[in-house]
Amino acid sequence: MCELLGMSANTPTDICFSFSGLMQRGGRTGPHSDGWGIVFYEGAGVREFRDPHPSCESEIARLVRNYPIKSDIVISHIRQANAGRVSLENTHPFTREFWGRNWTFAHNGQLKGIKKKELCYYRPVGTTDSEYAFCWLMCKLRERFPKPPARPATLQRYIHTLALELRELGVFNMLLTDSKHLYCFCSTKLSWITRKAPFEKATLKDDSLSVDFKKVTTENDIVTVVATEPLTTNESWNIMKPGELIVFREGQVEYHKE
Amino acid sequence: MCELLGMSANTPTDICFSFSGLMQRGGRTGPHSDGWGIVFYEGAGVREFRDPHPSCESEIARLVRNYPIKSDIVISHIRQANAGRVSLENTHPFTREFWGRNWTFAHNGQLKGIKKKELCYYRPVGTTDSEYAFCWLMCKLRERFPKPPARPATLQRYIHTLALELRELGVFNMLLTDSKHLYCFCSTKLSWITRKAPFEKATLKDDSLSVDFKKVTTENDIVTVVATEPLTTNESWNIMKPGELIVFREGQVEYHKE
Repeated sequence: MCELLGMSANTPTDICFSFSGLMQRGGRTGPHSDGWGIVFYEGAGVREFRDPHPSCESEIARLVRNYPIKSDIVISHIRQANAGRVSLENTHPFTREFWGRNWTFAHNGQLKGIKKKELCYYRPVGTTDSEYAFCWLMCKLRERFPKPPARPATLQRYIHTLALELRELGVFNMLLTDSKHLYCFCSTKLSWITRKAPFEKATLKDDSLSVDFKKVTTENDIVTVVATEPLTTNESWNIMKPGELIVFREGQVEYHKE
Repeated sequence: MCELLGMSANTPTDICFSFSGLMQRGGRTGPHSDGWGIVFYEGAGVREFRDPHPSCESEIARLVRNYPIKSDIVISHIRQANAGRVSLENTHPFTREFWGRNWTFAHNGQLKGIKKKELCYYRPVGTTDSEYAFCWLMCKLRERFPKPPARPATLQRYIHTLALELRELGVFNMLLTDSKHLYCFCSTKLSWITRKAPFEKATLKDDSLSVDFKKVTTENDIVTVVATEPLTTNESWNIMKPGELIVFREGQVEYHKE
């Protein structure tokens, strides 16, 4: 199965530690080897890195691992191809512009019959179920909300409804962002952890790397990391329930629905 | 002034040589130091690298320079900010999805009153005149052509009309691609060269680098490079005329209008 990784923070933070763990799953400690991608937000702007080659061998992945890009929101994905050939256009995450914001999406799972659903404004560039699902979701949002609704919860409730509908077609674990919020929907497998003061040391499962977070943070930092499976051996991760949506803003839970 | 760099080739080709020259203009041999970006196409898929920091100091630029990403179409830009603050969302090139393809755009020049023009489907994420102009151009294309027209020349003629209209507002040197064609519009300054067999040695103006293209090509390769100003000292570049549009496909001229 593909693996997801996301981050929401109240201060620009790098994800090198968690990404190192994820990178090893891309062919060394895990079977995932059909491409990877990562999108970093700095305010409204995005930086993305992607490669159809296995992440454990990728020169670009090595740059991301070693060059600490500080970011408020991150979405990353390692792909194990099931539907759609291995190619650059089939690597997640996918991005579309809506309301003058960059929206980014990554997914794991397979969705039977997704391509029977009708699209309007957005069309996929590649051939994956995932990108098609993203385009459909964005079309529905655009039809319903030509402008941002007055209350964020209105949008968040509707996103939950759409995610539940997509879940009917198969497995739909999702990370989505509108550049301000990180929407995490669990269909089968997703977990998260919020790190804040007092920070402690953490050790990755998939790499020999450990980090003492106390040394690289301030006492006001709040950083939430979301992953398909817990990345560290010595911390308490929250395991999401099937059908659950959590929306993080600046590292904290803003909305939650089961 | 900002600098543009583009490439259209009939075989996946790297742009390290030309990019080295452009990179030096980002703060060493030139005044351009408000960010840079580059988008590579591999078929329908895109890889992009961008940084609001000067290109001559950028770690990411160094990766691009040294890691030969082979591509059919490339658009790159170094920014000298005049309108719109220096930030990640204000770095070119800009990309939008249309007809299930990634369209990418970069621009140099300033456009007075561009933000009075009406937008529809696409909205800018940043604050530059350039991105606004791109969104307007894409809106007009989308209104006129809900689907690709039967004949490419129909679209190309219309793009020329829109570019001439934008040129009325100031300076509008443009590179645009729909993932198959490279549209080059000259408002004040743009030049190009097509390299094919028999290939020869070339020397950059802004770097000490020389390349003997015979050693890195086959006899069937056709590679066109487009730049604001000629990048090499010893080759014959074609200087475009104001108001001219040239459309390249696989390195060759497919459409041309003055």
